[in-house]
Amino acid sequence: MRLKVKFLKLLAGRPVAILHKNFAEKSGIHVDDRIYIEKKGKKIAAIVDIATGFLKEGEIAISSEIAKTIKLREKGMVDVEPATKPESLNFIHKKLDCRKLSFQEIKQIIDDIVKNILTESEIAYFISGVHKCGMSMKEIQSMTKAVVDTGKKLNLEGRVVDKHSIGGIPGRTTPIIVSICSSAGLLMPKTSSRAITTPSGTADALEVICKVNFTIPEIKKILKKTHACLVWGGSLNIAPADDKIIQVERLLNLDPEPQLLSSIMAKKLAVNAKIVLIDIPYGKNAKVTKRKAESLERKFKKLARYFGIKLECSLQKTEEPLCSGIGPALEISDVIKVLRREDPCHKLEERALELSGKLLELAGKAKKGKGKQLAEKILDSGEAYKKFKEIVKAQEGKINNIKKQKAKYKHNIKADKKGKIKEIKIKQLNQLARIAGCPLDKFAGLYLHKHLGDKVKKGENILTIYSENKIEMREAIKYYRKNKPIKFK
Amino acid sequence: MRLKVKFLKLLAGRPVAILHKNFAEKSGIHVDDRIYIEKKGKKIAAIVDIATGFLKEGEIAISSEIAKTIKLREKGMVDVEPATKPESLNFIHKKLDCRKLSFQEIKQIIDDIVKNILTESEIAYFISGVHKCGMSMKEIQSMTKAVVDTGKKLNLEGRVVDKHSIGGIPGRTTPIIVSICSSAGLLMPKTSSRAITTPSGTADALEVICKVNFTIPEIKKILKKTHACLVWGGSLNIAPADDKIIQVERLLNLDPEPQLLSSIMAKKLAVNAKIVLIDIPYGKNAKVTKRKAESLERKFKKLARYFGIKLECSLQKTEEPLCSGIGPALEISDVIKVLRREDPCHKLEERALELSGKLLELAGKAKKGKGKQLAEKILDSGEAYKKFKEIVKAQEGKINNIKKQKAKYKHNIKADKKGKIKEIKIKQLNQLARIAGCPLDKFAGLYLHKHLGDKVKKGENILTIYSENKIEMREAIKYYRKNKPIKFK
Repeated sequence: MRLKVKFLKLLAGRPVAILHKNFAEKSGIHVDDRIYIEKKGKKIAAIVDIATGFLKEGEIAISSEIAKTIKLREKGMVDVEPATKPESLNFIHKKLDCRKLSFQEIKQIIDDIVKNILTESEIAYFISGVHKCGMSMKEIQSMTKAVVDTGKKLNLEGRVVDKHSIGGIPGRTTPIIVSICSSAGLLMPKTSSRAITTPSGTADALEVICKVNFTIPEIKKILKKTHACLVWGGSLNIAPADDKIIQVERLLNLDPEPQLLSSIMAKKLAVNAKIVLIDIPYGKNAKVTKRKAESLERKFKKLARYFGIKLECSLQKTEEPLCSGIGPALEISDVIKVLRREDPCHKLEERALELSGKLLELAGKAKKGKGKQLAEKILDSGEAYKKFKEIVKAQEGKINNIKKQKAKYKHNIKADKKGKIKEIKIKQLNQLARIAGCPLDKFAGLYLHKHLGDKVKKGENILTIYSENKIEMREAIKYYRKNKPIKFK
Repeated sequence: MRLKVKFLKLLAGRPVAILHKNFAEKSGIHVDDRIYIEKKGKKIAAIVDIATGFLKEGEIAISSEIAKTIKLREKGMVDVEPATKPESLNFIHKKLDCRKLSFQEIKQIIDDIVKNILTESEIAYFISGVHKCGMSMKEIQSMTKAVVDTGKKLNLEGRVVDKHSIGGIPGRTTPIIVSICSSAGLLMPKTSSRAITTPSGTADALEVICKVNFTIPEIKKILKKTHACLVWGGSLNIAPADDKIIQVERLLNLDPEPQLLSSIMAKKLAVNAKIVLIDIPYGKNAKVTKRKAESLERKFKKLARYFGIKLECSLQKTEEPLCSGIGPALEISDVIKVLRREDPCHKLEERALELSGKLLELAGKAKKGKGKQLAEKILDSGEAYKKFKEIVKAQEGKINNIKKQKAKYKHNIKADKKGKIKEIKIKQLNQLARIAGCPLDKFAGLYLHKHLGDKVKKGENILTIYSENKIEMREAIKYYRKNKPIKFK
């Protein structure tokens, strides 16, 4: 069936195709059915909406995602045919019933996610299955391989070094580590994700002061100049299935372990990393317990052995945010303070030096036990800050940008009695910052005036909430009052 | 924020609101965010898409569902405000982690489903939780109550009698039972669902010959004439949350037990039924095993006691489709044959008489053990068929309609050797019929030429596949060849 293309100026964030009601009825196509759209051998799947009025019977209205992917022009003709229910739905059902999936079955699910053959609801079922039933090491290997196979690769000359944090704790060590280690001569094409469960991923924070969306050829240019970058992995299309899965996980703030493992490992494989350090903060208020952290370490090491990567994990008990800022702009400000040696910024500097040291040792730049010392030297010398400015400049940004802007609304939370900070519920602070508008509103977030063990006077500010939106601010204050995430006695 | 309404001629099947890119950016609203649209105190939630081009900055394009619900006119002004993440997401997460939900928590989820505050992906997470973790009897009661509370009610004078099947077996007993029992003087306002996992629900089958979408006042008019009806429950809005949940379950052919129990019971409560018979077919190829059937019976009885309903279950071992047709048109044809006494139609008549007899006894129209005899007498006398024609006429249909139409494509499956039918895989036949286009293509489906124990010659037709669509037919044949759902030796 041939139809004439009409462009739809929608930013639905997913491929949308709209058919005329009469055409759909004649062809036996219904709302939410899948169709294939084909042009000169290039084929894309789309989920159908049906309309009357703004398009004619012989037309198909498509969103820009589809037009770009298979290179269509307005008023050109395309072939359209209904697609039957994909077999991958059976495999998703299988996982939801806690049965093991073969490589072929996982590959089919991942393929169909990338090709947009599966709806977001169907992906939600898959995530639920993985969340509830877990995955065997063999399944995790399969998923990692399938995710890498369906994405692009960054093939670089030289030995790529990488680090990754499992996340959960506000405070960005990555920009500091990358600046220090690449100053020491390591090749670090760092791709980061956006926030999943926290108020800001490294990519969200960097985006406040520079671009993070680049193509692979653009990255290669940046790396020629700087030997390091701090970009968003999503724009590279190195793990498009994973990006889509994370988008659906975000609805419920889910992040199941097998998905976490394969997501991180796939991104390391896609940039061809040979040496990798994984940062695993643990504790009562962190993403994982000590036991879970140790289990993750074992699994990361197994996965790395399977894929031929030299990998170590750094487990660290973490009971509070690493610095004062929570949210993209507030966290990148803290990073700049550390790099400028203006403020040791609580535990952020300490942790960044610790991890940089390990990475320098792992890559053979320092002897065992001497890495942290070297890292500190590089930070003190100003070399790391210089390198960071180089990277930001190469990514078309400027550090000064950040000083001028603030969120529209601000609210101080004051202590209602005197005392000493006893516990900081990190997950609730993360949730609070998200309610205030993070990560999409870059300048929204929290500023923590007090840390664990600090003394507080009655009426003293303990936390400032920033938001771009009155309603979100109201909800955030309500959430704080209900949950009291900062405990003192 | 006030915006001007523009109608969107989309049949998205869900409320859609599209904002202009510039307006969205200024207001901090993103794709897939939730907003509230308000007009004169009436408020509706919608999920946001963002566009440029076909609408202006001060406009909001909305689908007809929204316009109808809060009575908007084109070019009128509405108030729009961003909504924060609903608390019900926390409860969905809780269920996905197998923790028990309180009545208030379940009520909040159901409310948000009805108000379209939850996306389909979020509902998929809820269903996954119920599927994996089950629900306590208390939770099932809560869900039933919440579903009824958020729907409309059919308040009738007189004692309402109802029946329901848990489904899974092709062959419609309901139209026969309703015709027999209302001939005997019972008040039977039967609301049926559309297919969930099978190729045809009773509503899908009836729709081939008459309307099944009615409002509550229309139903009352029909009942005044006929004392019985056979309508689709979905159009009555008696359990809108359940309808939405079923829509998302259908993606993966899921039908978790707690949802099955509360779905059926809510619909009985909404029509104020006092006497209810539940048909539970079980067996290797049925929806449930004998053990599961007995557990369902216990749970149905407990639920009924809690809600003050006189309820019995009829458990029946069922190893094959009740008659020859599988699919809406093919199944309603079989019903008419039984009512006309043209063909006993294998086990369909037997089962319909059995269930009618039980219902007549339960409602006091026949003595214990004499119900089936009375049912048979009514069927033989032609009274039941007369009643059925009355109902179809009252629902604006005509029985003859069905004889004129056939599906566009037809394919015979022939025996590749001689033998005897040994097993019929019902679930695979259901799947096969769905691949062929059921339930949306009314005339698609299967015709079973042979039943269990029948002898088959080599080359003889055992099954005919009907489809409206070449590709679906091709897929159906492929599925048959791969799975061979009819086994003989």
